[in-house]
Amino acid sequence: MKIRFGISPVIVLVLVLGTTSRGDEGMFPVSDLERLGLAERGLEIAPHEIFNSDPSKPCLVDAICRVNGCTGSFVSESGLIFTNHHCAYSGIQRASSPGNDYLKDGFQANGREQEVPCPGYEVRITRSWRDVSAEVMSVVTDEMDFIERTKAIDRRRKELEKQAEADNPGTRAEVAEMFAGKTYVLFLYTFIKDVRLVFAPPSSVGNFGGEVDNWEWPRHTGDFSFMRAYVAPDGSTATWSKDNVPYRPKRHLKIAAGGVKEGDFVFLLGYPGRTARHKTVAFMEFERDVRLPVVVDFNQWQIGVLEEASAADREVAIKHAARIKSLANTEKRSRGQLKGLHRTDIVERRAESERKLQAFIEADSARGKKYGTVLSEVAAVYGEMAEAAAYEMTLSGWISASRGLGTALTIVDAAHERQKADLERESRFMDKNIELTREQVVLGVRDWHGPTEKTLFHEMAGRFLRTTKPATASAVEFDPVVFNDALFADSPVANEQQVTAMMGWSPEQVGQSTDPFIRLAMAIYPEYLRLRDLDKEREGRLNALYGRLVEIKQQLPGETFVPDANSTLRMTFGRIEGYSPGDALWKKPFTTFQGVMEKTSGEEPFDTPHRVIATGRAGKFGSFASHDDGRLPVNMLYSTDTTGGNSGSPVINAKGELAGINFDRTFEATINDFAWNAGYSRSIGVDIRYALWITGTVFEANDLLQEMGVAR
Amino acid sequence: MKIRFGISPVIVLVLVLGTTSRGDEGMFPVSDLERLGLAERGLEIAPHEIFNSDPSKPCLVDAICRVNGCTGSFVSESGLIFTNHHCAYSGIQRASSPGNDYLKDGFQANGREQEVPCPGYEVRITRSWRDVSAEVMSVVTDEMDFIERTKAIDRRRKELEKQAEADNPGTRAEVAEMFAGKTYVLFLYTFIKDVRLVFAPPSSVGNFGGEVDNWEWPRHTGDFSFMRAYVAPDGSTATWSKDNVPYRPKRHLKIAAGGVKEGDFVFLLGYPGRTARHKTVAFMEFERDVRLPVVVDFNQWQIGVLEEASAADREVAIKHAARIKSLANTEKRSRGQLKGLHRTDIVERRAESERKLQAFIEADSARGKKYGTVLSEVAAVYGEMAEAAAYEMTLSGWISASRGLGTALTIVDAAHERQKADLERESRFMDKNIELTREQVVLGVRDWHGPTEKTLFHEMAGRFLRTTKPATASAVEFDPVVFNDALFADSPVANEQQVTAMMGWSPEQVGQSTDPFIRLAMAIYPEYLRLRDLDKEREGRLNALYGRLVEIKQQLPGETFVPDANSTLRMTFGRIEGYSPGDALWKKPFTTFQGVMEKTSGEEPFDTPHRVIATGRAGKFGSFASHDDGRLPVNMLYSTDTTGGNSGSPVINAKGELAGINFDRTFEATINDFAWNAGYSRSIGVDIRYALWITGTVFEANDLLQEMGVAR
Repeated sequence: MKIRFGISPVIVLVLVLGTTSRGDEGMFPVSDLERLGLAERGLEIAPHEIFNSDPSKPCLVDAICRVNGCTGSFVSESGLIFTNHHCAYSGIQRASSPGNDYLKDGFQANGREQEVPCPGYEVRITRSWRDVSAEVMSVVTDEMDFIERTKAIDRRRKELEKQAEADNPGTRAEVAEMFAGKTYVLFLYTFIKDVRLVFAPPSSVGNFGGEVDNWEWPRHTGDFSFMRAYVAPDGSTATWSKDNVPYRPKRHLKIAAGGVKEGDFVFLLGYPGRTARHKTVAFMEFERDVRLPVVVDFNQWQIGVLEEASAADREVAIKHAARIKSLANTEKRSRGQLKGLHRTDIVERRAESERKLQAFIEADSARGKKYGTVLSEVAAVYGEMAEAAAYEMTLSGWISASRGLGTALTIVDAAHERQKADLERESRFMDKNIELTREQVVLGVRDWHGPTEKTLFHEMAGRFLRTTKPATASAVEFDPVVFNDALFADSPVANEQQVTAMMGWSPEQVGQSTDPFIRLAMAIYPEYLRLRDLDKEREGRLNALYGRLVEIKQQLPGETFVPDANSTLRMTFGRIEGYSPGDALWKKPFTTFQGVMEKTSGEEPFDTPHRVIATGRAGKFGSFASHDDGRLPVNMLYSTDTTGGNSGSPVINAKGELAGINFDRTFEATINDFAWNAGYSRSIGVDIRYALWITGTVFEANDLLQEMGVAR
Repeated sequence: MKIRFGISPVIVLVLVLGTTSRGDEGMFPVSDLERLGLAERGLEIAPHEIFNSDPSKPCLVDAICRVNGCTGSFVSESGLIFTNHHCAYSGIQRASSPGNDYLKDGFQANGREQEVPCPGYEVRITRSWRDVSAEVMSVVTDEMDFIERTKAIDRRRKELEKQAEADNPGTRAEVAEMFAGKTYVLFLYTFIKDVRLVFAPPSSVGNFGGEVDNWEWPRHTGDFSFMRAYVAPDGSTATWSKDNVPYRPKRHLKIAAGGVKEGDFVFLLGYPGRTARHKTVAFMEFERDVRLPVVVDFNQWQIGVLEEASAADREVAIKHAARIKSLANTEKRSRGQLKGLHRTDIVERRAESERKLQAFIEADSARGKKYGTVLSEVAAVYGEMAEAAAYEMTLSGWISASRGLGTALTIVDAAHERQKADLERESRFMDKNIELTREQVVLGVRDWHGPTEKTLFHEMAGRFLRTTKPATASAVEFDPVVFNDALFADSPVANEQQVTAMMGWSPEQVGQSTDPFIRLAMAIYPEYLRLRDLDKEREGRLNALYGRLVEIKQQLPGETFVPDANSTLRMTFGRIEGYSPGDALWKKPFTTFQGVMEKTSGEEPFDTPHRVIATGRAGKFGSFASHDDGRLPVNMLYSTDTTGGNSGSPVINAKGELAGINFDRTFEATINDFAWNAGYSRSIGVDIRYALWITGTVFEANDLLQEMGVAR
């Protein structure tokens, strides 16, 4: 398959173009760029320089990669990847020890041979795609119940993926759902398994402000790092080997070392994860009243436990660092979303458009008959979910909080899933994924800390025992030996070697195990499977309903219609601009090094390294200083439409050059996942000038600047 | 004395005038107005319309009054006073009960006969003043030790006051210290003892945002109320009587019902309390490292105790409301000041000017001999204070936290002080003040709540017993009966009638009392007196040293020199302008009603009354809406130089009309007391349009608008 296809016209883009200087809602599939009127908005290159459907013509899209759940961009012909510090975080953490603390001190490879392997990392580059909606939906029949429907779609997607991978050896295929129950697109990716760490600033730069500043503006974080993609000498994908050579991307981004200025047009390319722009008010209410409050509460408690354990011991702190960071990130985002959802106008606006839609449906009796109950049926599904949520979230919370139970359950699940035909398995246990899954499970065990595990396990076990079970729940009976203290200090599921082996166990081996965690996982497994099927059943119902919702919405005149984010390649555009977070307040779009110094207290997370302070105090900003005021820009704000997964996305100027790296949104913009707003939806990036100054001027990694073609 | 005098030229004002649009540091004595170049800065009336030295010519100063520790202004010819809600707070609180909750519901007199007396309130209007520095300092001799020096100055000030009051029957005289140990001015005040509450909005307007928003911007508080001054029918000062008539001020302020706009020149007249602009680095360090951290900690703890007691019972909540408000206000201001003092540049800038001064002193051997050790001697006094602070602050903290101990100690003190000749007494026990002191002590008892008293008393007693006593401290031995529980439920010092009588006790009666609080107070009294003398001794030393410091500073060329605030009448000017609180942030100078609605959550302190919401939602802003955008302005920000005591000061426009009422400063500006900064020192006022809208449009007090000559 050597042709890049556009996406089916089922995705109708009705954009109200105008002379406005604002960004617009929309994470656009790159095949749609020609229709966006980008030249009028300020783009100075042709849209086909961003994306060209002729694969023989390299374009900016070839310089974009997915780095696990993040985005990165190639910034040299030798596979140098520019991404966020927080995207490389697990890699930095796993390479660190108290004696070699790269989180604390930063990391700088002195030559390529010193670049550190990052197990668990995978890089993907989008090669091509095609609409497979008809091929997917052809397997759905009216006779199917909802579980069957979900499973049939799922199986069909996997078949298509398998076929595509067979046709294109050495690639990864993914059938992405663009509109639930409606539109599916098969994406083909180049994928790279040997990823190495090249440069990371100290956390006191890369995570400056920590959880205090996370999701906040003004921001002063140098959240960037450099990794490098390696392949076998013949260019094929390979796991780490000293013989591997740097990957040569078809295209890499040129650095805009002069940065951008207020009002400038910018765009981002990246892999935004999930949005819910087409979901209903019932969904928003479920999130607001049921799910998000539990997430906030649950994460706050876990963070508290992990932080207490970390306070006394740096070794434990390093173990828990990535986990705390991830929990805190979700907690604060969820809090922002809750706050946003409690602003009446967001839910109310969605409700208003649903009332309009319902009136439109009922205005015609044929429409009424076909679509009249869609919205109320959707609401009924969320109603059922809300009723069972306390119980279901407690069980899944227990599994996620306890490394022991979580690991054991994955081992049990793997043993049973692997008995099935490849395409029938849960995706992570398919032959092509099982290796990465095992790697991630084993790496999770590396963070094991007995006392923390005990506290988390006991509390969640207690909550599970106390929670009211729905009538449909299977009884879960387990041996009280799991509460034995010795368990947490010395368990096979806490041991990397043993877990590696156990991930290959058969159902018989699992059944014969006397390990209390495995026995507990066995006791829970039937109920776990019941809930997994229940999820599929709900997904099937919602999938069919949302498919019908899309159908009828498309008949509604004048409706803007862009697919939700789904971790596939998207483009979003906007301008460098500030915003008003509230009455009498204005936030400007650039922060400066002066702000770093204002925040620096010497205490974590505001403990700027001496080297940075000294270089900054000496005013050594050189050509990286802003032309306007001579200050060094640090972070910047722009009105693009982003979500998680856009972490590490390049911020590209009108000429197609890299002017910064995206890493966060403002607190008000956490609600982006539900609704985008031109007034306050702003994303946050590191200004390229700060990244270059830290890398080149402060830490003197001149080889990297040279490799990127930056003269100082 | 029928002539208003200017203040002696000892107060040299070296002002650097320019075309700057900013305010300037300085709370100027009104006799200095002619020298300030106000016309160039934007004042459209002649300075002599603000202050006229010819008493036969009424001027704006005649419309300004002191309301206890606050400022107010006359806004009608019938003694109507416009001041802050928080200035009238104690009066509103004391008039309230759970059945008649004026704090919660607001208060509106339906005709003058319904206006509510506010015992404990006193209104003063400045009549005239004259420099009495020579007369005061003539009593100081080189032979005096420092206690003698303080006492001699103190006695001389009281003699001059007594003489002035004898010469001008019906007035109050006060000798104010303009520059410690150097300049003294005798002020003569008309004073009024019958003060009544006319109108107060509900606390949910007048204290909107409560402690959360206190010292913060953006602000949305309707912190205003109306009181009225009454005198005997013959115009003389009288306590409450139904025959009293409204006071007729010589001048009242005209209302600028159209408000002001960004960039406008404004000025304030008022009674700023205390600043420390001429104190040394040693003082700042004492505040930063010793006193303020204890104040913050101590107040936070007391607030916690009072809030816990208030949570369960609205009656207790009303009792504790004013006390919590006052503690919280001090706590947050102190926190702001601590933060400001930790900004290195503030202390560093003062240190730099001290280094310059020291160099200037040492550049001349005669100067060196006379002034060479002044700064180090000042530092030595603060050093001694720092050493004893833990002990002394614990004792004074106990006395202030325990109403029982505090009241008992005042009773004991009163008994002994009243044995002395009038001029020898502590000021509050002098014949002219004893009545107000007794009133305030009795009103304090009205807030008594046994369980709260017990908690505060026990904790502080424990701290006092545990604290390390300095070698010089007298032993304090007291009967453990004070820890008897019964005490807190039923003590004579908790009873208004009994306290009224006890305030007239002789030393013998005090000595014979068996009340445990009185006996404890007797046990503590000798140590209390020792510390009072120690304070006087330190004051004497600092007083003499600061006098010498002023002498030498005046010889330093090009130094700006404005006296510290000391609760006497001052004028300060500036512009309506925003500020940047930090990198990438800008705060605009007006908030609007939209911001009130954004903050309104229905939960205290953001529980806007339905009546306000309904009127606002209906958009009934009429002529009070801003001409720019049709929104209703609520609060405003300006670059004047204010401190505590400026609460209630009128914000006056270039034409001399009332455009708002001052009630707070920004968090950054809490540091004003130590140093003023054009970049971030901003004061906060209620826009007159919001006050008029709440009073007239929302609560329909049209009689008040009519009385003020406001047409809608």
